[in-house]
Amino acid sequence: MNAEIITIGDEILIGQIVDTNSAYIGKEFNKIGVSVYQITSIQDDKNQILQALADAESRVDIVIITGGLGPTKDDITKHTLCEYFDDHLVQNDMVLDHVKELFKKYISTSPLLQVNIDQALVPSKATVLHNANGTAPGMWMTKNNTVFVSLPGVPFEMKYLIQDEVIPKIQKEFNRPFILHRTVNTYGIGESALADRISDWENALPSSVKLAYLPSLGKVRLRLSSKGPVKEIVEETIAVEARKLYDLIADVIYGEEDDETIEAVIAKLLTSKNRTLSTAESFTGGTIAEQITAMPGASAYFKGSVVSYATEVKINVLKVSKDLIKAHTVVSAQVAEAMASNVRELLKTDFSISTTGNAGPSKGDSNKEVGTVYIAIATPKGVHSEKFMMGSQRERVVQKSVNKALEMLKKEISKY
Amino acid sequence: MNAEIITIGDEILIGQIVDTNSAYIGKEFNKIGVSVYQITSIQDDKNQILQALADAESRVDIVIITGGLGPTKDDITKHTLCEYFDDHLVQNDMVLDHVKELFKKYISTSPLLQVNIDQALVPSKATVLHNANGTAPGMWMTKNNTVFVSLPGVPFEMKYLIQDEVIPKIQKEFNRPFILHRTVNTYGIGESALADRISDWENALPSSVKLAYLPSLGKVRLRLSSKGPVKEIVEETIAVEARKLYDLIADVIYGEEDDETIEAVIAKLLTSKNRTLSTAESFTGGTIAEQITAMPGASAYFKGSVVSYATEVKINVLKVSKDLIKAHTVVSAQVAEAMASNVRELLKTDFSISTTGNAGPSKGDSNKEVGTVYIAIATPKGVHSEKFMMGSQRERVVQKSVNKALEMLKKEISKY
Repeated sequence: MNAEIITIGDEILIGQIVDTNSAYIGKEFNKIGVSVYQITSIQDDKNQILQALADAESRVDIVIITGGLGPTKDDITKHTLCEYFDDHLVQNDMVLDHVKELFKKYISTSPLLQVNIDQALVPSKATVLHNANGTAPGMWMTKNNTVFVSLPGVPFEMKYLIQDEVIPKIQKEFNRPFILHRTVNTYGIGESALADRISDWENALPSSVKLAYLPSLGKVRLRLSSKGPVKEIVEETIAVEARKLYDLIADVIYGEEDDETIEAVIAKLLTSKNRTLSTAESFTGGTIAEQITAMPGASAYFKGSVVSYATEVKINVLKVSKDLIKAHTVVSAQVAEAMASNVRELLKTDFSISTTGNAGPSKGDSNKEVGTVYIAIATPKGVHSEKFMMGSQRERVVQKSVNKALEMLKKEISKY
Repeated sequence: MNAEIITIGDEILIGQIVDTNSAYIGKEFNKIGVSVYQITSIQDDKNQILQALADAESRVDIVIITGGLGPTKDDITKHTLCEYFDDHLVQNDMVLDHVKELFKKYISTSPLLQVNIDQALVPSKATVLHNANGTAPGMWMTKNNTVFVSLPGVPFEMKYLIQDEVIPKIQKEFNRPFILHRTVNTYGIGESALADRISDWENALPSSVKLAYLPSLGKVRLRLSSKGPVKEIVEETIAVEARKLYDLIADVIYGEEDDETIEAVIAKLLTSKNRTLSTAESFTGGTIAEQITAMPGASAYFKGSVVSYATEVKINVLKVSKDLIKAHTVVSAQVAEAMASNVRELLKTDFSISTTGNAGPSKGDSNKEVGTVYIAIATPKGVHSEKFMMGSQRERVVQKSVNKALEMLKKEISKY
């Protein structure tokens, strides 16, 4: 059961936008046993679209096409589908009613134009998929046993259509294998040294299990994948190999990756323990607060943050003593710990986390080497900090530090 | 002068990572007159890679391949290139010296293994491109007048190779046309109503000019594109059409998009005027601070932020009066303005911006409708606020509000 994704739009090819739709579809399809064989991004060009459709048809069972369904002249997907399917457009009354309703509700200032009414035109052979969040309907068509699904490119509309229309219809109409990925996070060991340690095990893996190395900032993730018709067998196969892997490298494994982000895990922990959190951020500039508040319901446990980018804000708002800063500089364990303790008191929370460091490019107030970072955690039992050297690339220093801070926080909250 | 990008890696197809490399390459190539015809993401599979290489060779002048160059067993790009070019691997001494140096400098805890030494093996027909940031070299090979460039998939390494090796070599070896994109931002008008207003102009556009509509949160961007051998002619063609466009819809145009983000514009304004900034963020949770501090050198003008997610933080830290909150609720113009004024005083800055609102999913402390947002700006001359209805999708409410806040801030600072 294979799928391909074709994303249409010059804006992707000139790099004006990053295609995030494909990763979303890939992830959701894997969950229901559909493998994505290829992703192809092409221009708003009729002949290129026709060629891509034909190529994909020869390879896979389902082709998902996104983009080119808007009301303007550069949107040509619908006409091109008609040509590919030797079909013509007909008005769909349900879509028209929906378009009118959306206009009445949200766009009352603009008149309903002919191009808006034309959004209700669909190929006569298409099954319409309801787009609750926009005027362009999804379309499901079949040719030579390959299903073609055309969806709008707006992520917000596409996601709804995938979840509420496309996936249920695939589940109803296709037998699918079970696909399982399990990703183990390792820290503190390089990719090649890791490969060396597990090479005997890797060489003896059954052919049904695929192993991938995913190195990224400070960690290497190992992904085990397998698929088959029987869920229990696939699960058992992966479980057996994962156990062997744990036996080999338990010392460098720090949990597994799943759909839950670390913010989600922290949210669950704090909510279930009925504890609260605050942050005091220097060089991370509010990124930790931003990631935590991206979770719906964060107001139940997150009270706020003092982003003390300037030293004087550390002194005046966070009440870090001038003498302490003078003795140790702002980039120090002492200042990190004072920031964490003080924000915990100021915002009256159970836990708090602080960051101070130098992300570069220049040395800043502390004269400490670029990449020097201190992260402190204050809890009901006290405060502690750790020092890290995070390299010399500004963005990476910040993101690595945020990851590390959340990691430390999760570990600490788990103890309570 | 056309290129294709082939990104290799199962992690892309199962949606474990979003392919950001292609957008980067697309953007950089456009700047030097190379159009990207297609982007193809495929699995770590020899036959699929060979097929993708052959397909791309038949279509374009340059093929950029990313991924699959690591030291582990799942990295098969180099061997597959050898098969495609009927070639074999040879050791490159300069690469080997570089690998040894990197190990000595950064990975002194791990021994140099055979797989690391093997990073210095390259196809005998390849020209090596120096990878300053990693052990896997870039490779430049030619077949039937098509150039194939293989690069590591790690964005950090890939970007350096594109800038310092690939682009200079393309500029030296190929004649390229001049490509120009100009993107005009419009606000407050829907895509179809906009298309209606400019339809006569659009229909009369010369064939050398392409127009695209890019609708996104609260705005529609119009992109004019053209290319040709003579820079001056391309520039003049676009300038003439842009002038006509401005004459038609000056009332809804708010600037143009270029490589400069709004944070960069704000950074320039504040630096040149020697002014400082602080923020007080409620439901945006630090996102404004995070976007501002993402700019290198932000410490020159950004002092910090109070993220007052909880009402008590608005009261205790930002000193917003309890009575004011009681009279108007936390989601009100009055509270937004008090937050902005007070954070400006507390952090001693020239400008400050505040947000309060309800991003959902539940109604929260204020009982105001989900999507209700107030943004206030405090300046040396006083404080003012605006109310917005930002819809019902949490993420979108936050991002639209951050965009709007930065927009308002830029406008305000420009006056000083």
